Amino acid sequence: MTDVEKLVAVEEIRRLKARRVRSMDEKDWAGYADCHTADATTYTFQSEVGDAAPVTGGEAIARRLASQLEGRTTVHHVHAPEIEVTSATTATGIWPMEDMLWWEEAGEPHWLHGYGHYHETYEKIDGRWLISSRRLSRIRVDRGTGAPPEPVQR
Amino acid sequence: MTDVEKLVAVEEIRRLKARRVRSMDEKDWAGYADCHTADATTYTFQSEVGDAAPVTGGEAIARRLASQLEGRTTVHHVHAPEIEVTSATTATGIWPMEDMLWWEEAGEPHWLHGYGHYHETYEKIDGRWLISSRRLSRIRVDRGTGAPPEPVQR
Amino acid sequence: MTDVEKLVAVEEIRRLKARRVRSMDEKDWAGYADCHTADATTYTFQSEVGDAAPVTGGEAIARRLASQLEGRTTVHHVHAPEIEVTSATTATGIWPMEDMLWWEEAGEPHWLHGYGHYHETYEKIDGRWLISSRRLSRIRVDRGTGAPPEPVQR
Repeated sequence: MTDVEKLVAVEEIRRLKARRVRSMDEKDWAGYADCHTADATTYTFQSEVGDAAPVTGGEAIARRLASQLEGRTTVHHVHAPEIEVTSATTATGIWPMEDMLWWEEAGEPHWLHGYGHYHETYEKIDGRWLISSRRLSRIRVDRGTGAPPEPVQR
Repeated sequence: MTDVEKLVAVEEIRRLKARRVRSMDEKDWAGYADCHTADATTYTFQSEVGDAAPVTGGEAIARRLASQLEGRTTVHHVHAPEIEVTSATTATGIWPMEDMLWWEEAGEPHWLHGYGHYHETYEKIDGRWLISSRRLSRIRVDRGTGAPPEPVQR
Repeated sequence: MTDVEKLVAVEEIRRLKARRVRSMDEKDWAGYADCHTADATTYTFQSEVGDAAPVTGGEAIARRLASQLEGRTTVHHVHAPEIEVTSATTATGIWPMEDMLWWEEAGEPHWLHGYGHYHETYEKIDGRWLISSRRLSRIRVDRGTGAPPEPVQR
């Protein structure tokens, strides 16, 4: 690959990742599924909710996440990544992340605030870069209950 | 446009946006105005403070913001963007954002912590990319009063 | 330099910075030292812990930081940068930053949450971009004691 081809690949993967987290926070599950390959594998549910096996396939991952986040407000931010283009159709990426979730259980407000890194692989299929696998390593997760101070908008 | 021309445009818009948020947090209002076109339009004041109409023009937006943020400490962070170069002189961008404000009213500390997306358009004028419009969609805003815990520096 | 050479430089510096903050939060001190030139200078300890002089040299900076952060969980995030390539082998960068630290003193939990900008210079040596100097300007720092609410993981 030329330098320009690599730079174009990095920029496309960057935009793909941005679209993936925005789709999640806007609960656009069709858009979210569309960021992943048909056989994409995610191990994030294993660490988060104790699943025995990874969830496989963009649409299955989107359905699982839609169910898990129903009724929850979420903010996911990804920061300066390390993206490596390993061939014309494969790449890897490490993204520092921060997630904030707010929801209610039995009428009581709950929240989660976490930090870690997404470790991902990408594949270029039919001219488009897509996420082919994801694993989440955590640095720290805090959880709490009780009303957050004076929310003016949700 | 060639791939290289598009990549250069994306990088210039990325730096423009970084300069815009830094100018705001450092209260460099001349630098802030200089990031916008002479007829730039912002709808953010409508949602934030209930203005009936958008504010128009880089210098007018800077003056309005300077007045609104006087005496307030602010931190604005923008995260992985989706930038699309739509022609040699036009582009669009969606930026996840987080803002934190701290100020006093009647001797009492107040704070705001918000999350959302900036939706912007850009124009290239006389060889420089500038922000030509901005709208802010919010995911969540929390506000509170009371002393934040042991601030050691402001 | 051609446009492509500049874009490649910016992307390499971006990845270098991402690796530097990840190395710090994962306490990979060999990897951290490897991001800096042999005569790199950091002024961040001056403002943070009152050192009279900057610390010089990638390995010395790493050792100093390893000692300062021992037993502390840290999260450092860097946001949209302003990178300027000033020659084929020199560049500057301004990075908005946010840091969160958690630790214990005499059995009591402590935390720090800060905001500011890293001001850095870079040099390309033997084909690799490296950090050659760093200064940290702060917007705000909060500190507190007491148990953070229900940490489920550290």
